Amino acid sequence: MPLHLSTAQPDFEQRFLDMLSMKREDAADVNEAVSAIIADVRERGDEALLDLTGRFDRLQLAPGGIAFSKAEIAAETAKVSPEDRAALALAAERIRAYHARQIPEDMEWTDPEGATLGWRWTPVSAAGLYVPGGQASYPSSVLMNAIPARVAGVERLVICVPTPDGIVNPLVLLAAELAGVDEIYRIGGAQAIAAMAYGTETIRPVDKITGPGNAYVAAAKRHVFGRVGIDMIAGPSEVLIIAEGEQNPEWLALDLLAQAEHDADAQSILVTPDDALARAVVAEVERILPTLPRAAVAGASWRDYGTVIVTRDLDEAAKLSDRVAPEHLELCVSDPEALSRKTRHAGAIFLGGWTPEAVGDYVSGPNHVLPTARSARFSSGLSVMDFLKRTTMARLTPEALGAIGPAAVRLAASEGLSAHGLSVAARIRALNRGGA
Amino acid sequence: MPLHLSTAQPDFEQRFLDMLSMKREDAADVNEAVSAIIADVRERGDEALLDLTGRFDRLQLAPGGIAFSKAEIAAETAKVSPEDRAALALAAERIRAYHARQIPEDMEWTDPEGATLGWRWTPVSAAGLYVPGGQASYPSSVLMNAIPARVAGVERLVICVPTPDGIVNPLVLLAAELAGVDEIYRIGGAQAIAAMAYGTETIRPVDKITGPGNAYVAAAKRHVFGRVGIDMIAGPSEVLIIAEGEQNPEWLALDLLAQAEHDADAQSILVTPDDALARAVVAEVERILPTLPRAAVAGASWRDYGTVIVTRDLDEAAKLSDRVAPEHLELCVSDPEALSRKTRHAGAIFLGGWTPEAVGDYVSGPNHVLPTARSARFSSGLSVMDFLKRTTMARLTPEALGAIGPAAVRLAASEGLSAHGLSVAARIRALNRGGA
Repeated sequence: MPLHLSTAQPDFEQRFLDMLSMKREDAADVNEAVSAIIADVRERGDEALLDLTGRFDRLQLAPGGIAFSKAEIAAETAKVSPEDRAALALAAERIRAYHARQIPEDMEWTDPEGATLGWRWTPVSAAGLYVPGGQASYPSSVLMNAIPARVAGVERLVICVPTPDGIVNPLVLLAAELAGVDEIYRIGGAQAIAAMAYGTETIRPVDKITGPGNAYVAAAKRHVFGRVGIDMIAGPSEVLIIAEGEQNPEWLALDLLAQAEHDADAQSILVTPDDALARAVVAEVERILPTLPRAAVAGASWRDYGTVIVTRDLDEAAKLSDRVAPEHLELCVSDPEALSRKTRHAGAIFLGGWTPEAVGDYVSGPNHVLPTARSARFSSGLSVMDFLKRTTMARLTPEALGAIGPAAVRLAASEGLSAHGLSVAARIRALNRGGA
Repeated sequence: MPLHLSTAQPDFEQRFLDMLSMKREDAADVNEAVSAIIADVRERGDEALLDLTGRFDRLQLAPGGIAFSKAEIAAETAKVSPEDRAALALAAERIRAYHARQIPEDMEWTDPEGATLGWRWTPVSAAGLYVPGGQASYPSSVLMNAIPARVAGVERLVICVPTPDGIVNPLVLLAAELAGVDEIYRIGGAQAIAAMAYGTETIRPVDKITGPGNAYVAAAKRHVFGRVGIDMIAGPSEVLIIAEGEQNPEWLALDLLAQAEHDADAQSILVTPDDALARAVVAEVERILPTLPRAAVAGASWRDYGTVIVTRDLDEAAKLSDRVAPEHLELCVSDPEALSRKTRHAGAIFLGGWTPEAVGDYVSGPNHVLPTARSARFSSGLSVMDFLKRTTMARLTPEALGAIGPAAVRLAASEGLSAHGLSVAARIRALNRGGA
């Protein structure tokens, strides 16, 4: 049974805080193993990749077999049904259209003192995307990571996807093709992250690594951070649904279960001022749960982390949501725009009963890589910006330096940095003498 | 003597690669000590802060003395000279004006299928800024961290600055006042980071922590990352100057020394097609170096990491600069705009001989917190964006769900996520029946 709370309970605040601080993930300490793998790949390059792939993926590759060839990709993607291909192409096109609007503009202006200031955005040169193998090998995640990189203008886009026992997911290769990926390697785990960060004979290093993965992949990403950029370290996923009485309990139950079926660590939270709706939704969840192919996973998530909170009104619901800062926030209410303006902390908001979170996972257009575990308080989902960086620009005229330089000299002196001051003062002296 | 390279040398490529991979910092392993400090602050709160401040800063505080009072701040800032105050105010105003232009716009549009999409930016609720004590206690860094947070709309802005032996830097307090900081605490080290991340009786927790610090502070920031957001972990600083023959060797020498005086780990690189200029600048450095108050630091940096590279032409210089991806790039050439368009990877670019890097440290307006140690390949300097996060928004009409929902159902099936598919299919069924 999920946790039932009501803001009318005298001990609500403590029970809500306990819910907020529930630890949903046992992070295995794999740091030592990962350090050894990374050191091995740095030392032995391709040879290490072949050994580690044999050991972890039960797959003997030849050095020439680390990369998928064009012919192999064509043979695999030919297996995809026309219907799946069309669905993936629709998703790719909508994701591309959404992310194309994220490209930020360069700026330049000249201020009254004569300083021309601004900034310029440029893409990362090469990006690597990790794609898990097996069960969690999601073609949608390939699109969500690779398309923003391509839209940003990344020149070289690399995928590493393990193929345990040689099993390939043709949809992953098709998604890579649709997204415009340049190179695909059949390696995984910490060894794939090390190869992308440091390079081997076959794989040239990249500048930024994104994509989800297991504990080894996450630890390896933390390890190489600084050498390359990384995206966030994904934690267990969550949805919070705020619903009013007239909403369809079956739909809400399915939305809660869609979150729960991801992972036993996922969390589904329903917040409503309507006690009858809360009970109806819970009954629907219990009815549908046993019928799901992933009933075991969804059931564990619902039992351990499922939460229903009855509030006084929608305003109180919005306030609680902000304290959760959910990855996904569904507003199944009559005026979702108004309610959305009362919340500040959420990775993505789905407005109204006709926008189930699952369309956001695939086809609505926004990214499905979103801040988990309350990190929407301070971070954003994946976007084109993750593959761009800003260079600030400044050009002073001699007069501008004459106007603002003396303040720099003063501040440099107060910080004890004399060469800083001299570098400005020498120019001001020349200016006062009439030139360089 | 600095390293002298020329692209005409037959072994240039290897020597350049060696220079790129020079390790400039010995990161002491303080992880265990930092873990213990963080655990202590989480366990004992203020009491731990008092004990640790006594031990590390040789300062016995009472619980009520952790925060600076308004009267204490007023008494300290009154000590600042009118000239220093005016310089700091000019810097604050220029930094504010530059960063105000960085506020990104919210977006919303409706696509042909009837999906209303977009995103909304909201500020982090509370941010904490770490300011080192003693020698590296820079009022300019207070402005550079606090003003972007304030411009972003952060509601609560906190500073922790240690006061070893009770010594306070009045300019740091004045900078905090000018930037609009709400609370200032006289604690430092890993204990300050722990207090801001987890909270104590006196200090409420924040959502994001920025600011430079020693090895303990850096390790503590890594440790609390995820619980709160952090900015980059700063490494040793560097400047790369591309110069043509007609530039003033003394100015260039001072710019190289301004970088070198920061830290013995700092790196100053001159790249020029003009061998005579290279020799003249080196001679100027040697002449000025002994006259600097920080000659020992600057001399160590110049001796160990200073580098002069003579190239065939400016294009080759720009290509080498991109491989360094310097934190600071000075273009002391006749057409700096044209040359700037040939580079992609730099934290900040200073165009022309009248824009010494030191004005950027204080008064030009752009942020001086910039990506170090080649990380400009994939990251940007501190900005208003670091204190904002993006929430993506989607609202589908029933017709929009009818148009794009079937593709989501298809993709959910291909990924084995049946509740995802059902949550969309149930609504499409209702739509086909004519309503919810």
